[in-house]
Amino acid sequence: MRLLLISNSGKPLYWWCKKEIADFAGDKEVTFISAATIYDPNEYYQKAQESLKEVGVKLNHLNLKSPQDLINKTQVFLVAGGNTYHLLKKLKTNGMLDKIKRKVLDGAAYIGISAGANIAGPNILTTNDWNVVGSTYFNGLNLVPFNINPHYNAPQDKVLTSAETRDERIGEYHVFKSNPVVVMEEQTYLTLDDNKVKVGGRGKLKVFTKGRKSKEFKSRENLDFILMK
Amino acid sequence: MRLLLISNSGKPLYWWCKKEIADFAGDKEVTFISAATIYDPNEYYQKAQESLKEVGVKLNHLNLKSPQDLINKTQVFLVAGGNTYHLLKKLKTNGMLDKIKRKVLDGAAYIGISAGANIAGPNILTTNDWNVVGSTYFNGLNLVPFNINPHYNAPQDKVLTSAETRDERIGEYHVFKSNPVVVMEEQTYLTLDDNKVKVGGRGKLKVFTKGRKSKEFKSRENLDFILMK
Repeated sequence: MRLLLISNSGKPLYWWCKKEIADFAGDKEVTFISAATIYDPNEYYQKAQESLKEVGVKLNHLNLKSPQDLINKTQVFLVAGGNTYHLLKKLKTNGMLDKIKRKVLDGAAYIGISAGANIAGPNILTTNDWNVVGSTYFNGLNLVPFNINPHYNAPQDKVLTSAETRDERIGEYHVFKSNPVVVMEEQTYLTLDDNKVKVGGRGKLKVFTKGRKSKEFKSRENLDFILMK
Repeated sequence: MRLLLISNSGKPLYWWCKKEIADFAGDKEVTFISAATIYDPNEYYQKAQESLKEVGVKLNHLNLKSPQDLINKTQVFLVAGGNTYHLLKKLKTNGMLDKIKRKVLDGAAYIGISAGANIAGPNILTTNDWNVVGSTYFNGLNLVPFNINPHYNAPQDKVLTSAETRDERIGEYHVFKSNPVVVMEEQTYLTLDDNKVKVGGRGKLKVFTKGRKSKEFKSRENLDFILMK
């Protein structure tokens, strides 16, 4: 299995991670899944296309109404960011979640950006997003055994929320669930290639394991342990 | 109907709003609902009791297993803060949500703090909390026609999230729902007495109406308009 899970925001779209996406996709065409946006999916696709053509990546926009042909021939998925609840609901109600999962287990590569990274885990209950669609779908693709929380930004946490910090929220999650939560600062990513897991990018990644102190990792550090039981 | 909806955090518990709670409760005993905490409810109750006895407020802790007697004689509810999804799930699965609502419509006063304020609205989908319990209950007491978002802190918003700001998330909510969202900074509250709605406290309150620019209000300002269709 090959995964690239990215914590990205800011403009222009993919400003710092184009090369990473291009390197990961190689010479393959990429199936772009825009279902996380609650706004115009075509506009989103065009922006992504514009950004990634600079690095030679060719995108094909997945149409949720008739996705089967494109899914069948997909060698690389790119599930783009937006609202995680919206994304999961769309994929689930269009019968796509299982199809994507099967293709990835059969060898298609998977790029997940923010919301697209969140759904790679067992569930999306550690997303920062609001459930503005009132969705009752919480189970992700379960490609990795850990949850994801992108856009992590510890230092200012307390300043903003005045209530719970991000770390406290993860503590709350661990009252009910036992799998690790991996948080990624902006401009940070994680790659999985078979059983090799590595950190990349300019920020830090932190692993929260239930009942233990969280641990920080930086670019090029190895995270293989996270796949073990 | 009489409501006091408060945005509170920090220690010691209720440090800035004791007097407001005491004034609102008058000489009545107060039924304390601790269901929002995912930690020890008795410890929570004791802290609240300690804090509020200084201002002469007598609390009775509602036991979710046999709540009927206490609910029947309740003249003032205090629904304390914590995780909003946890709170709503507990009240719903213990059959308490409708009972509390009926009592409030029959004249019992209602104090809602943070999570307790959130559930006073039509739904809880604008809470900052994570759905760590994977709850599928989203509909609140609907005592007021607007949603609530406490712990609002606009200026630092962009610093923290790097992704969506609180205002952008409310914009996302309004793609799907049409009722106003009322955000409250820390140390801010809202009172409703029959059809009189007023702001109180040291912070600002902001009303987000779908399709319009948000509007700011300060202590003593009138918000009656928010009850009109």
